[in-house]
Amino acid sequence: MVMSKGERTKAVILDEALALTSLEGLNGLTIGILAERLNMSKSGLFAHFGSKEMLQQAVLERAVEMFADFVVRPALEQPRGRPQLDMLLERWIAWDMGDRFPGACPLQCAAIELDDKPGPLRDYVVSAHERLRQVLIGIVRAAKEEGHLGPATDPEQLAFELVGIAYGFTHMHRLMCHPDAGRWARAAFAALMDRYELPPR
Amino acid sequence: MVMSKGERTKAVILDEALALTSLEGLNGLTIGILAERLNMSKSGLFAHFGSKEMLQQAVLERAVEMFADFVVRPALEQPRGRPQLDMLLERWIAWDMGDRFPGACPLQCAAIELDDKPGPLRDYVVSAHERLRQVLIGIVRAAKEEGHLGPATDPEQLAFELVGIAYGFTHMHRLMCHPDAGRWARAAFAALMDRYELPPR
Repeated sequence: MVMSKGERTKAVILDEALALTSLEGLNGLTIGILAERLNMSKSGLFAHFGSKEMLQQAVLERAVEMFADFVVRPALEQPRGRPQLDMLLERWIAWDMGDRFPGACPLQCAAIELDDKPGPLRDYVVSAHERLRQVLIGIVRAAKEEGHLGPATDPEQLAFELVGIAYGFTHMHRLMCHPDAGRWARAAFAALMDRYELPPR
Repeated sequence: MVMSKGERTKAVILDEALALTSLEGLNGLTIGILAERLNMSKSGLFAHFGSKEMLQQAVLERAVEMFADFVVRPALEQPRGRPQLDMLLERWIAWDMGDRFPGACPLQCAAIELDDKPGPLRDYVVSAHERLRQVLIGIVRAAKEEGHLGPATDPEQLAFELVGIAYGFTHMHRLMCHPDAGRWARAAFAALMDRYELPPR
């Protein structure tokens, strides 16, 4: 895909904006600091993103795209059901362990910062997280249809617990730097699967 | 307990600082904005808290104290073992559902903001979360000794999963405003207990 000069500049700005959000949160993503880090003028930045809110929105959209590419798509490419769930967990762990951001995942920063701030940005973050929840629910339904999980499996309950495992992992790995975080997350996931698996015929 | 005028002023400042951190994060807790909200001079504020870092530290210490009073202490006051675990979950849910802060729990803001910022503040937050983890581990050990949970119970694994349930709940309740968040959290906890419970004699 060939990008125009304007598109290339915009992509460079967006990368730096993602890094800054990862370190300082959406609140810390100011046009002034970003211009300084990019050695650009503020008016140059404004030419690409008309306001702080548009820049924040673009950062969140890009982070959602990255998460979809890195975590969700590889999972959905697996055979339906349990293999999709297994891959999803592994990619989610890899997402948190990776170094694509200098700090926290911008979507997690946004989830905490925006939970009490009604408006279009919050709506966007909620809808992105809801889309992910619906993907999880869909995969669990597929696993039931494929006979990988028993008929008593509650997809919403299982989706809730998957999110809990991922958030627990992020906490123990990124903040606590605990070397066992991955082992705990995988053991919790295995137990969750065991709970709903059909007894072997 | 009788407070001096200086102590009372300090307590008022701290309350407002907690509210501001809850809304804007530790990054957003600036002496300037706080002075404005309190209708005080910046120098008046500095007389009580010598620097932004000292104010941030005081905010975190107060939030830890509040969590200990509201969640941990009532749990530890229960009979040893399983009743302590049950109470801990209920109080943790109540902590997140309460309105003591206008926004997110300052400790959760700090966990995300500081994970990539080495220094004394991060060290303090890590040590507070580690103390909580050790309390959880201690309660699970007591539940094993009391025969509420089987000998195969891994206290560190269970502590990890409890944290995951609490974080999953916060996400689904505070950001997603999902009315089933509490039901999911309680069902996840019940399944976790079932997994380790001794079979009835």
